[in-house]
Amino acid sequence: MFPSRTYHDPLHGAITLEGSDPAEALLIALIDTPAFQRLRRIRQLGTASLTFHGAEGSRFTHSLGAMAVTRQIFDRLAKAHPELQPQRPLVLCAALLHDLGHGPFSHTGEDIFGGNHELWTRRILSESQPVRQRLDQFHPNLAADLQQVYLKKYPVPLVCQLISSQLDCDRLDYLMRDSYFTGASYGKLDLDRILMALNYEPQSQKLVVARKGLAAIEHYLVVRYFMYAQVYNHPKNIAASWVLEQALIRAKTQLSHLEADATVRAWLTQPCNQLPLAQYLAADDGVFSYHIQRWRESGDPVLADLCRRFLDRDLLKALDVTTLDNVKREILQQQTQQLLEQAGFAAAYYTGLRVALSRGYTLYQHGIELQTPAGLQEISEVSPLVQTLAQPFQRAWLLYPREIESDLLLLHHSL
Amino acid sequence: MFPSRTYHDPLHGAITLEGSDPAEALLIALIDTPAFQRLRRIRQLGTASLTFHGAEGSRFTHSLGAMAVTRQIFDRLAKAHPELQPQRPLVLCAALLHDLGHGPFSHTGEDIFGGNHELWTRRILSESQPVRQRLDQFHPNLAADLQQVYLKKYPVPLVCQLISSQLDCDRLDYLMRDSYFTGASYGKLDLDRILMALNYEPQSQKLVVARKGLAAIEHYLVVRYFMYAQVYNHPKNIAASWVLEQALIRAKTQLSHLEADATVRAWLTQPCNQLPLAQYLAADDGVFSYHIQRWRESGDPVLADLCRRFLDRDLLKALDVTTLDNVKREILQQQTQQLLEQAGFAAAYYTGLRVALSRGYTLYQHGIELQTPAGLQEISEVSPLVQTLAQPFQRAWLLYPREIESDLLLLHHSL
Amino acid sequence: MFPSRTYHDPLHGAITLEGSDPAEALLIALIDTPAFQRLRRIRQLGTASLTFHGAEGSRFTHSLGAMAVTRQIFDRLAKAHPELQPQRPLVLCAALLHDLGHGPFSHTGEDIFGGNHELWTRRILSESQPVRQRLDQFHPNLAADLQQVYLKKYPVPLVCQLISSQLDCDRLDYLMRDSYFTGASYGKLDLDRILMALNYEPQSQKLVVARKGLAAIEHYLVVRYFMYAQVYNHPKNIAASWVLEQALIRAKTQLSHLEADATVRAWLTQPCNQLPLAQYLAADDGVFSYHIQRWRESGDPVLADLCRRFLDRDLLKALDVTTLDNVKREILQQQTQQLLEQAGFAAAYYTGLRVALSRGYTLYQHGIELQTPAGLQEISEVSPLVQTLAQPFQRAWLLYPREIESDLLLLHHSL
Amino acid sequence: MFPSRTYHDPLHGAITLEGSDPAEALLIALIDTPAFQRLRRIRQLGTASLTFHGAEGSRFTHSLGAMAVTRQIFDRLAKAHPELQPQRPLVLCAALLHDLGHGPFSHTGEDIFGGNHELWTRRILSESQPVRQRLDQFHPNLAADLQQVYLKKYPVPLVCQLISSQLDCDRLDYLMRDSYFTGASYGKLDLDRILMALNYEPQSQKLVVARKGLAAIEHYLVVRYFMYAQVYNHPKNIAASWVLEQALIRAKTQLSHLEADATVRAWLTQPCNQLPLAQYLAADDGVFSYHIQRWRESGDPVLADLCRRFLDRDLLKALDVTTLDNVKREILQQQTQQLLEQAGFAAAYYTGLRVALSRGYTLYQHGIELQTPAGLQEISEVSPLVQTLAQPFQRAWLLYPREIESDLLLLHHSL
Repeated sequence: MFPSRTYHDPLHGAITLEGSDPAEALLIALIDTPAFQRLRRIRQLGTASLTFHGAEGSRFTHSLGAMAVTRQIFDRLAKAHPELQPQRPLVLCAALLHDLGHGPFSHTGEDIFGGNHELWTRRILSESQPVRQRLDQFHPNLAADLQQVYLKKYPVPLVCQLISSQLDCDRLDYLMRDSYFTGASYGKLDLDRILMALNYEPQSQKLVVARKGLAAIEHYLVVRYFMYAQVYNHPKNIAASWVLEQALIRAKTQLSHLEADATVRAWLTQPCNQLPLAQYLAADDGVFSYHIQRWRESGDPVLADLCRRFLDRDLLKALDVTTLDNVKREILQQQTQQLLEQAGFAAAYYTGLRVALSRGYTLYQHGIELQTPAGLQEISEVSPLVQTLAQPFQRAWLLYPREIESDLLLLHHSL
Repeated sequence: MFPSRTYHDPLHGAITLEGSDPAEALLIALIDTPAFQRLRRIRQLGTASLTFHGAEGSRFTHSLGAMAVTRQIFDRLAKAHPELQPQRPLVLCAALLHDLGHGPFSHTGEDIFGGNHELWTRRILSESQPVRQRLDQFHPNLAADLQQVYLKKYPVPLVCQLISSQLDCDRLDYLMRDSYFTGASYGKLDLDRILMALNYEPQSQKLVVARKGLAAIEHYLVVRYFMYAQVYNHPKNIAASWVLEQALIRAKTQLSHLEADATVRAWLTQPCNQLPLAQYLAADDGVFSYHIQRWRESGDPVLADLCRRFLDRDLLKALDVTTLDNVKREILQQQTQQLLEQAGFAAAYYTGLRVALSRGYTLYQHGIELQTPAGLQEISEVSPLVQTLAQPFQRAWLLYPREIESDLLLLHHSL
Repeated sequence: MFPSRTYHDPLHGAITLEGSDPAEALLIALIDTPAFQRLRRIRQLGTASLTFHGAEGSRFTHSLGAMAVTRQIFDRLAKAHPELQPQRPLVLCAALLHDLGHGPFSHTGEDIFGGNHELWTRRILSESQPVRQRLDQFHPNLAADLQQVYLKKYPVPLVCQLISSQLDCDRLDYLMRDSYFTGASYGKLDLDRILMALNYEPQSQKLVVARKGLAAIEHYLVVRYFMYAQVYNHPKNIAASWVLEQALIRAKTQLSHLEADATVRAWLTQPCNQLPLAQYLAADDGVFSYHIQRWRESGDPVLADLCRRFLDRDLLKALDVTTLDNVKREILQQQTQQLLEQAGFAAAYYTGLRVALSRGYTLYQHGIELQTPAGLQEISEVSPLVQTLAQPFQRAWLLYPREIESDLLLLHHSL
Repeated sequence: MFPSRTYHDPLHGAITLEGSDPAEALLIALIDTPAFQRLRRIRQLGTASLTFHGAEGSRFTHSLGAMAVTRQIFDRLAKAHPELQPQRPLVLCAALLHDLGHGPFSHTGEDIFGGNHELWTRRILSESQPVRQRLDQFHPNLAADLQQVYLKKYPVPLVCQLISSQLDCDRLDYLMRDSYFTGASYGKLDLDRILMALNYEPQSQKLVVARKGLAAIEHYLVVRYFMYAQVYNHPKNIAASWVLEQALIRAKTQLSHLEADATVRAWLTQPCNQLPLAQYLAADDGVFSYHIQRWRESGDPVLADLCRRFLDRDLLKALDVTTLDNVKREILQQQTQQLLEQAGFAAAYYTGLRVALSRGYTLYQHGIELQTPAGLQEISEVSPLVQTLAQPFQRAWLLYPREIESDLLLLHHSL
């Protein structure tokens, strides 16, 4: 019999995995694989800690949390619907491993390298021996079922919904966690009430929301909107991602003259999703951060400056141009490029237009269904609040270095 | 006039620095120096996140927090004692910068490399241009005063005590922060009551504790004891430090055959405290972690295995030998070495005896003085609880790899 | 010099009143008056603890909290705008005393007795000697200024707004407090961000919201909506108020045969707002609860049963009739009355229709103004979320005793 | 099938009782009895809210919480030891009902009236029809078993220990709850770690503590010590109880001239433990508070003044005489009486000596046993911290009215 293991989590308290329960023993074994331990070296929020200093947590931590939330929700549903019990190992594994494929700088990195973490999660499950062996030992179909879940094709919709939907355990954990660590106390979710709001509908085998739980779900969607508007799409965060991205774009152009190990060379020259598994797994935040530290001393002044800015947090500034129309944005951007060239900057790396959409709810992935006397109804049809949250709130910024600030602001005022 | 800046902290809420206040504008400028930003790349608790997954925060975060606590305490004291007001810039800078000299893996790294972060804090203050210039611009004596504070020679004892004493703001922040992030909820300090317990005694210019605040201070010391016993000296944490240390010791012996950049070579070959400033500042957790990742693929099997164990968290195990006398510990260690050699291990790297002392209170640094009708009294003379906490609680562990566990446990039982 | 005093509050931590500050010494003196101490005997949420067991806190507790929030906000504004400083005593007193006029069962009691707590606050300020003397001793105009503030006629709008507006400190405290004590964790406000969102506009002397604080205020309004929809207008809470109200209505009709003291007789026979001051102040939750306990043993079976139901929490049930039109509601109510009469109930006391409006925002009291590049703008014109919250969400319930439940549900289904 | 019911608790979150579980359906039915609902009208901490304004919660609230903690601990133990399962209904009922016998002003009232709430809990169980019937319907032995548990004679020691021991669920809930509501944030217990520390030892059928859980239990005992020293035995709290007690003592002497209902007359003239059940249950905090409000207007000036002091919180003051020997205390008390008589006070009611013992641990009730390699050991034999906490810390105060303060302090200084 395997020993139990307890993770003490700031948000969820003690998360105990019972070694005597085969499914939970499997989770322990999966956590102990190199591929999972690697998530300790990838931050949950990419570059966000440059803006919200507390956002230093890793995907490892979030993955444990997502599993803990999933287990809590699933066990409650399965108590009322014992027919769900056989899905438990699959559900718990799917929750634990859902971010296994994340690479350097998480979502920021996906934008930069063109990778897809969901695809990589599936590749790792299938190709990484330590992970695959443990799954196969538990049940020969488990790995295949996990692929189905991640592809949203698993025949029991509830399982897919718990893992990835408008109301999945991934979001529940990261909204709670990110809001806590970024000091955004409005992000406190009422997990108890959300839990009590969730039902299983045996006919459709779906996860649905009880009518009396509407408010808890509305609140969750409001928090989601706020977190996007205030944290994930914060202009400083967008500026930090930009500087990182430009540094890597520049590095690519200079690669032949740069110090770089084989992993980084592969990442900068090959399509991300086609990297060999070993090269993919060899990369993490630290590997790239290390190279950025080295390149700060490189002979290329543009690259050296971009790396310095990223490391010393001397980021670009962001001018809110949301209210400008496209023509004016275009004009302003051209003028900014001219200003930069006059000031001796390699303009393309130092200015750009960024548009962010924040919304609390999208109909993507089937949405959220509410149990009403009239049958299941899309939540946005019932709730005016959700309808409002389903509208995208767009904001746009022009990025620029502080060195040209006064000139740029003059231009902006004269538009 | 400079703009204000707000850091949203999970523990302390909004920490606002007012640009209109020259002292706080200086703090903003100091935070923006490369030397301070570097603290983002050094974890507060070294290797502890391998044991307590939430312990992923940096020295940057803690330094902001320590400054925030100091400001809160100082401003309260200075309201009642306006003569303290001129010390404010010094106190706030001293709090913000107190950890500036920390290097890779914080205290774990000090043990490994033989460095002294306090010495380095003073060197950086004096030698790092961006930091030094900002201090000098504010006041020509500020840098020298800071040196005095860190050397505990500054003529106003209160200032030294707030920064480094048995009851300093550093400890207040880290106990709150570490307990929160390690999920040790018993570590919640009653900051309000501690604040109200602290007084300034104008005659001696000392920080003292009001009689009615005794309980709040007793509780703080109890928490300190628990955090040492349960977190900082957790056997898994001790094992993680050991593996890291052995990897670096081994790397030193193999250095001529290893890939390593100039910084790492310098750190592994020169006495830490004599490194050139630039080499000291060039190192951080990431630089060493990166090398450990490279060395995992090195041709030296011992080094490669130690690096793998550290990265994949396949750590040594710890056998509690607290109740064994020295003779028996010695015997057991020798037998362990034999077992290891038989099993093909390079024994010196894979076993060791570690002793940890946990105590809530020491008389070091003058202790804590309580205001009583009979004058100032050492707190341990008044409180039986503190007297108990002043005793060191010793625990000892024998480290070994899981591969020899069953044989070792047999030996242990037969002792 | 007066001693300081500290109230340790579950929500706000230590609330210290400095005896050395004349305004805060006045607050201490006001708290110590019998009229203010009486608020300890009036629950913040009337009958709500019958539905949310934690809602047991008093108006005394909330009044301290509202003062603490006000002080925090005011002191921050006055730091940036020292010309506000002279308003401090007025603002703090107005916050502390804003609920002084509440009577038995707070708002529930106002509905029952037809009283107006704002009118009574003003009467107590003017007529209650201990309160009046302390105010007059501090400044001869203070009592008159307080009247102006409560009448929203005081010439500095900011002062009135802090005390009573869409964004006043009263609401900030009670939303935080009530959500905490009712276990509605979605009610956690981000007080730090709200504080930072609030500005003073010197020209108009108004409290306004900074553009970058929009999200914090949106969130506060969302919480307000949820608290109304989920807590204040919870059908069980509405049912509890109904039973209390009917018991008192019945008692009025039977008063000549009942045991009752002079205070209760006065309250049940005179228009509330015309009671003599002493009779008003002599009443509190306990006085009426005591009589309800006595009347439980009275000879009138209707009164005895209503009192028993209230005390033993054998409340009415609530059928949601929100989706029924007025005609159907009317029909159902008549049928319910018939059912009750057949079952031997005094129908008028045992059934009723209750409609509740929940909204997060109303334009009443000038609304909330946002600072934008285009000048001050009504928040609902800028925020689609607030616009949605400004719509009233109506719900309606038919109350009935569980004894007729099965028959009533049949009728309802057949409608 | 019965519907489920959820109580949203500030401390424990959602406490759901499942109607489909017969034991939990019984709990719902017991909560709905008049005897249990009566606990809503008895405050957990008697007069403490006069000192700690947040301490307004009722025995009802605490009883739900104690049941929730018990269920969490029991269910964890029973998962590992399924042979415990049959004890579940008994354990849950015993936890829920453990305070059923509390009377007006809880423990303060016990001191005043000489009642014993444990005796009354047993009497109510046996004599109160609605309670008794529900128990008997569930199982004919349940009421008798409950008696055995409360008498600590039930054959499974674990059951008795969970309900009443040095480490029972009652204490776990009230320490958490009281510390929260009195704003004593050092009282935060690490419930997760305590839970994980508790084991069941099948041989002895005892609740024991795992060796690795020692720190969590030490911390719990430290918190207990602090709560006694700082909250329960706070001198203002002791003064408040004194004033209440003297008012009732005086009322007893004047009873023939006073307005009082039959219940209050019975309580003031008969030995509390011999009251008829109906008279015992008819009393609560409100009934006595109401009489105190009436007696404030009584013709007896001593009674009127004592009642006024209690209601308006014009309490006695407390002079710390801990360091005085018995002879000096005696002298001071006599001198105080003289001062009072000279000032026209009925001295016996206005001064008294009060001694309070605070300790974190007593060996009473078998203590706490730790699992060690050497077998079960008393925790105080293993832990120096607990040994210190087992010493009683004594403090003594002389109570007096503020009117004689200056004279008394002169006398005190001259002793």
